[in-house]
Amino acid sequence: MKIVNAAHFSTKRDVDTGTETQRQAVLSIISAVKETGDQAVFSFTEQFDRVRLEQLAVTEQERNNALDEVSSQVREALEAAAINIRRFHEKQARQSWIETSPTGTMLGQLVRPLQRVGIYVPGGTAAYPSSVLMNAIPAQVAGVKEIVMVTPPNQEGRIDPGVLTAAKIAGVTEIFKVGGAQAIAALAYGTKTIRSVDKIVGPGNIYVALAKREVFGLVDIDMVAGPSEIVVLADELANPAYIAADLLSQAEHDPMASAVLVTPSKELAAQTQIELEQQLANLPRREIAEASIRDYGAICLVEDLEEGIKVVNELAPEHLEVMIEHPFEQLGKIENAGAIFLGEYSSEPVGDYFAGPNHVLPTNGTARFSSPLNVDDFIKKSSLISYSKQDLLEHGPKIIAMAESEGLTAHARAIELRLKKERGN
Amino acid sequence: MKIVNAAHFSTKRDVDTGTETQRQAVLSIISAVKETGDQAVFSFTEQFDRVRLEQLAVTEQERNNALDEVSSQVREALEAAAINIRRFHEKQARQSWIETSPTGTMLGQLVRPLQRVGIYVPGGTAAYPSSVLMNAIPAQVAGVKEIVMVTPPNQEGRIDPGVLTAAKIAGVTEIFKVGGAQAIAALAYGTKTIRSVDKIVGPGNIYVALAKREVFGLVDIDMVAGPSEIVVLADELANPAYIAADLLSQAEHDPMASAVLVTPSKELAAQTQIELEQQLANLPRREIAEASIRDYGAICLVEDLEEGIKVVNELAPEHLEVMIEHPFEQLGKIENAGAIFLGEYSSEPVGDYFAGPNHVLPTNGTARFSSPLNVDDFIKKSSLISYSKQDLLEHGPKIIAMAESEGLTAHARAIELRLKKERGN
Repeated sequence: MKIVNAAHFSTKRDVDTGTETQRQAVLSIISAVKETGDQAVFSFTEQFDRVRLEQLAVTEQERNNALDEVSSQVREALEAAAINIRRFHEKQARQSWIETSPTGTMLGQLVRPLQRVGIYVPGGTAAYPSSVLMNAIPAQVAGVKEIVMVTPPNQEGRIDPGVLTAAKIAGVTEIFKVGGAQAIAALAYGTKTIRSVDKIVGPGNIYVALAKREVFGLVDIDMVAGPSEIVVLADELANPAYIAADLLSQAEHDPMASAVLVTPSKELAAQTQIELEQQLANLPRREIAEASIRDYGAICLVEDLEEGIKVVNELAPEHLEVMIEHPFEQLGKIENAGAIFLGEYSSEPVGDYFAGPNHVLPTNGTARFSSPLNVDDFIKKSSLISYSKQDLLEHGPKIIAMAESEGLTAHARAIELRLKKERGN
Repeated sequence: MKIVNAAHFSTKRDVDTGTETQRQAVLSIISAVKETGDQAVFSFTEQFDRVRLEQLAVTEQERNNALDEVSSQVREALEAAAINIRRFHEKQARQSWIETSPTGTMLGQLVRPLQRVGIYVPGGTAAYPSSVLMNAIPAQVAGVKEIVMVTPPNQEGRIDPGVLTAAKIAGVTEIFKVGGAQAIAALAYGTKTIRSVDKIVGPGNIYVALAKREVFGLVDIDMVAGPSEIVVLADELANPAYIAADLLSQAEHDPMASAVLVTPSKELAAQTQIELEQQLANLPRREIAEASIRDYGAICLVEDLEEGIKVVNELAPEHLEVMIEHPFEQLGKIENAGAIFLGEYSSEPVGDYFAGPNHVLPTNGTARFSSPLNVDDFIKKSSLISYSKQDLLEHGPKIIAMAESEGLTAHARAIELRLKKERGN
């Protein structure tokens, strides 16, 4: 892993909006699904997933069979994780509120769940049951009644049993065998089989991401996810073996994943390099991890912790591990990070799988302005205004003055009319 | 205004992603601003706003002069409105939280303001100081330090004094004379004069909307706004003059604005039609309002209130006025609406200008899944995980089982390494 000084460490980024060819492909898939619904969905599934399906919906029997195909150890771990995830997210739930005033006016904010949401779960080489928990449980905690999962089938037309088991644990209500841009189009516009949803969440490839961009506004979407990232901020007391192991746990995700160590200690930097080499040697996903470390990994040498935190805030990492002597003492200075792991036992996989906070986190520097997936992503608010006669009589003239200054006479007259009648003019 | 039965009342909608020509224009503006920064901004301003500017930033003197150009009545109304808006939004503010466990683990959620946000304020035929208050105050309440306003200058290179006054009242920290897609590009990528922001909010024309879509991900954006809408749900006791006045206060915004009365009362429908004709007669913005009423207005006749509420929930209107005998009794059934106005004194302009809740509301049916602009739009959350040795020893094996079942060996090893060391193996 290359070592660079903070001064030469670039944090520049841009957004991936795909190539024109990719975008045109997505537009044509969306318009086909819009026009012919299920027919287009079946046909794209045959084309892209190489399977001719009899039906899109996963049956109750398929869902039940899956439970037997997962080891009891894994199933129990998923169930324990689900309890933690549910408990953490329940703390995020919000209340509607109303305030009354002696003048008779009542103002408030109603908080209600979305009615129907779609969760995209990638298929392909790997299946991630944990992602099903992380996406579906916050929706369930928010009170969403209909949680629809879509995921591409394999060439036998099957869905990973771990994914189906997690869906059961997390309370997913419908599952369809469809992936890619066609899945997003079906969720947004609806087909005969798949009714449209209010919001689509979950990661996917560039076609899925572009399709989400296109339907944004007709339905809501979550932030478009980029490759995974970890930054470890460590001082000379940190354990280089732990650091290397945690960096690799990011790196094994994706050749484009990024793993960065920020430290003022040259010795720690050198030791971590050695550990990385050793641990890489017999890693099953070595090729992926090696490419990630080579192309997107770095050790950033800083003058001191203060400069280190500055680099961290500029990177705004998805995952930040703080392995320094007194991590809580620096917490206030860390402004941008999706999830912050404090201390040597808070290894990133603890958060990826089990502790309770969500593992769907803002990537590519978006932690500057966006948040881990949470209950707020599955609620909507409505303002409530019950204005009293007394307040209208008192404040009506100000409202009229503002409306007239903006040239909106009909606005002014809607108030004038009421003032006239109530004053008996 | 046409009268239709609920059975024939369509609520179908789609999202406006512009024409290919518009999109290409936006892409080329963005790439020019990305490449040449201020130079491109000056040049597009000359091309589109027909003014050659000396500098982009509004000076302190310009800001102060504006205050003298606004009547004291309007200024005082803006100040009173700002107090109400601030007070309402302060109730939305959230706290960071942390939970401790006897096993030593601490989990939490940090809530912090975005650092720098951009507010787009449209120019052109009308200036809306109230919109400046509604966009900037929630950001200020959230704790955002840098609130940057962009708005196109007129042909004399000036900004509306009402808009500048509202910016002063609302605590806007920087103002630049730039509009259109070039303003969005400058806010997203930054130029020498305009530093990049974390989020862009505020309505604009189709070029502004498309540019926001393109930069989404590099920065956050608010929901892309469509034309304004009002739905009035009324029974036979409602005042048709008030209803007509309120419908017109939406209709005067835009020929594409939509004003709909939903009622079970044929008599109220007929009376409202007569009132509309009379009130339209001498309205300054008659042409706009007439087109809106003709093309997008309707009276939807329903069997009863229950069917009326069903129509309302399908429409998911931006503004909903409930003018029925006991409006609070029906509140629980109303699922989708940006702002709900209860009773005959809660005329929509009360909320547009003064009461306190935000007037930036979800349009085009997006109230199904999105919310009035609020303090949450200007904060970000970070998860906090401080896992204890005790919990790692106890739960580590479950984490390992989950990671292995997903084929992510490096994840498993990061935990195994720690278990081995702590168990002294």
